[in-house]
Amino acid sequence: MSDPLRLARRMGGIAPFHVMDLLARAQQLEAEGRDIVHMEVGESDFDTPSAVVEAGRAALAEGRTRYTPALGIPALREAISRHYRDYYGVDVPAERIAVTPGASGALQLALGVLLDPGQKVLMADPGYPCNRHFVRFCDGEPVSVPAGVESDYQLHAAHVEEHWDSATRAAMVATPANPTGTLLDRAQLVALAEATAARGGALLVDEIYHGLVYGVEEVTAATLADNVIVINSFSKYFGMTGWRLGWMVVPPGLLRAVERLAQNIYLAPSTPAQYAALAAFEPEVLAELEVRRTEFARRRDFLLPALRELGFLIPSTPNGAFYLYADSRRFGDDSQVLARRFLEEAGVAVAPGIDFGAHRAADHLRFAYTTSVSRLEEGVARIARLLGQG
Amino acid sequence: MSDPLRLARRMGGIAPFHVMDLLARAQQLEAEGRDIVHMEVGESDFDTPSAVVEAGRAALAEGRTRYTPALGIPALREAISRHYRDYYGVDVPAERIAVTPGASGALQLALGVLLDPGQKVLMADPGYPCNRHFVRFCDGEPVSVPAGVESDYQLHAAHVEEHWDSATRAAMVATPANPTGTLLDRAQLVALAEATAARGGALLVDEIYHGLVYGVEEVTAATLADNVIVINSFSKYFGMTGWRLGWMVVPPGLLRAVERLAQNIYLAPSTPAQYAALAAFEPEVLAELEVRRTEFARRRDFLLPALRELGFLIPSTPNGAFYLYADSRRFGDDSQVLARRFLEEAGVAVAPGIDFGAHRAADHLRFAYTTSVSRLEEGVARIARLLGQG
Repeated sequence: MSDPLRLARRMGGIAPFHVMDLLARAQQLEAEGRDIVHMEVGESDFDTPSAVVEAGRAALAEGRTRYTPALGIPALREAISRHYRDYYGVDVPAERIAVTPGASGALQLALGVLLDPGQKVLMADPGYPCNRHFVRFCDGEPVSVPAGVESDYQLHAAHVEEHWDSATRAAMVATPANPTGTLLDRAQLVALAEATAARGGALLVDEIYHGLVYGVEEVTAATLADNVIVINSFSKYFGMTGWRLGWMVVPPGLLRAVERLAQNIYLAPSTPAQYAALAAFEPEVLAELEVRRTEFARRRDFLLPALRELGFLIPSTPNGAFYLYADSRRFGDDSQVLARRFLEEAGVAVAPGIDFGAHRAADHLRFAYTTSVSRLEEGVARIARLLGQG
Repeated sequence: MSDPLRLARRMGGIAPFHVMDLLARAQQLEAEGRDIVHMEVGESDFDTPSAVVEAGRAALAEGRTRYTPALGIPALREAISRHYRDYYGVDVPAERIAVTPGASGALQLALGVLLDPGQKVLMADPGYPCNRHFVRFCDGEPVSVPAGVESDYQLHAAHVEEHWDSATRAAMVATPANPTGTLLDRAQLVALAEATAARGGALLVDEIYHGLVYGVEEVTAATLADNVIVINSFSKYFGMTGWRLGWMVVPPGLLRAVERLAQNIYLAPSTPAQYAALAAFEPEVLAELEVRRTEFARRRDFLLPALRELGFLIPSTPNGAFYLYADSRRFGDDSQVLARRFLEEAGVAVAPGIDFGAHRAADHLRFAYTTSVSRLEEGVARIARLLGQG
């Protein structure tokens, strides 16, 4: 007789985050009185903008606590549509916007409507680990394509051409990317859309770090081609992580299926969060977010040369998100050991490359600049001392 | 070349809700000035208790807008644990509670960790349609077991014995059930747990309508056996639908897997909703909910005899949820046509049986008593006139 609680096979492919153990250890050290510089956290240190919080409070006071339509309240879908016009100068009709419970909900819908069991999805290694696991959750097969500095750690059309086979259904990219902070430009996105379309496949583009881009053009893939699905979120740029709200730009032909799946797998996104998010596009909020963007750029401009100075290799300048993915070979051949040393001996928490894939993962660390410049300076100084450079 | 946006096979098994079309038509009629009695809505007409709303507003003011642990904030897991002690007199340690984005999130986790593609899950027909679709989403096969008045429309241990085969992984029941409002008693739940355990399978028990039970003992399956997973929610009894918050009582052996899957498929449940829900167990809120329960019982006690009087068959008294599942054969052999007639000719919206399965679906209508007794009286009077009894 089988075990009533035997795990499904897909769970074998769904790994825990190593950084969670590291975070737990960091919190333990803090409880013992140690000061820890946190450069491991993938969440902005800025609070939800106060006007958004106030809109959420007002919505609650007005009784906005019932189910909404599965694809979200019309006013928010229209506000997001206007955002595409105002921010990117492109026309994305509100009907194509599906408001979702975080980018997580959007990824579930996108893969759920597209992917049959056993079908493959190409993605760059290194990459955001949940993307692989969403594919596994739909019983698909994530294909991690090794991507190094030669392609800014990104999946390019040439990778699609090389790795696509008859079982491949889609390619997934992120711009800016986690853990590397690198972007795809317009030509690269168009080439990816064409390469996937030519093979009868879809292109999923994760734009959840849009808005956190420094000094280069931001290109949305939402209007580039008919086979493109864009995933976005209120979590990062808009500072709304805990509200769990995102959206998807859906190709018109998939809208009914996406709505049907949303009705069934989660009914509707959070109602208070949707009403709060209406305020996210107000001019004073956008102005506040621009101030934050400038501050993130300032942090990047401090941390990037500082890490290079220490001997970490970061060949090209990452222009987005709040991460630097640093080659740490000079300091040993196991970045998990190195991350542990940084924490235990220097009181600096960073994420080991293994959380983001397998390709040269042991050679890399991810530094998040989700803390102030003064704390980043302190972290760099501690690492310098540990490495005998202080 | 294949279509880049061809739908995954699972979408063929995921049907839209017919009641949505009916609801859209009802709203259209209302826009034209018609008065519609709504007896189709599966959402309580009572607002979120004001103390819960205030707790949510206070949480926002205090900046509770960041990610929480994947299984929820410890204080809420402990509050739910205490609820099991206070309400049922059973000991469910906080470590076994996973707070989830609605019961939907809990069902995804439960099936995600247990079910391999192609494996079967037994459930009663009629039943809540999303349950079938969650199984499809995990590429499993929902097995709808016809259940009639002889088992109060419930799946019993005898059904498990009859329908279980080597590909069956679990059985799923709901008590109180949607669309029938019927319950399983302790002996029936124990027999189900034993029948599934004896076959190496799990038993999923949906208790989201707990608290909305009238005059009979409420039994939770949370402590009945080691192979039982309980799904619950703040939506129905606690009046928190739009907040999207639920929980699962997880067998200890599955906790790590459930946490790992939660981290990956949604990161964490809504933070403001979790802090708001802390107030749901306050004595004044529970007192308010008891008043509401009494009101639901009063509605049931009006509507049940009134529908029987009209000629609908409801053989045994449904003691929970806010639904009556009525045999409408006397008025025709297609309840979808009948529901449409009720709406167009009498201005009364009810849900056709087809939304809940196939077994004698065309013979049934679901009446929801999620509106006041005076509106229920108006609805019944209109139906009586339409049927030539007024």
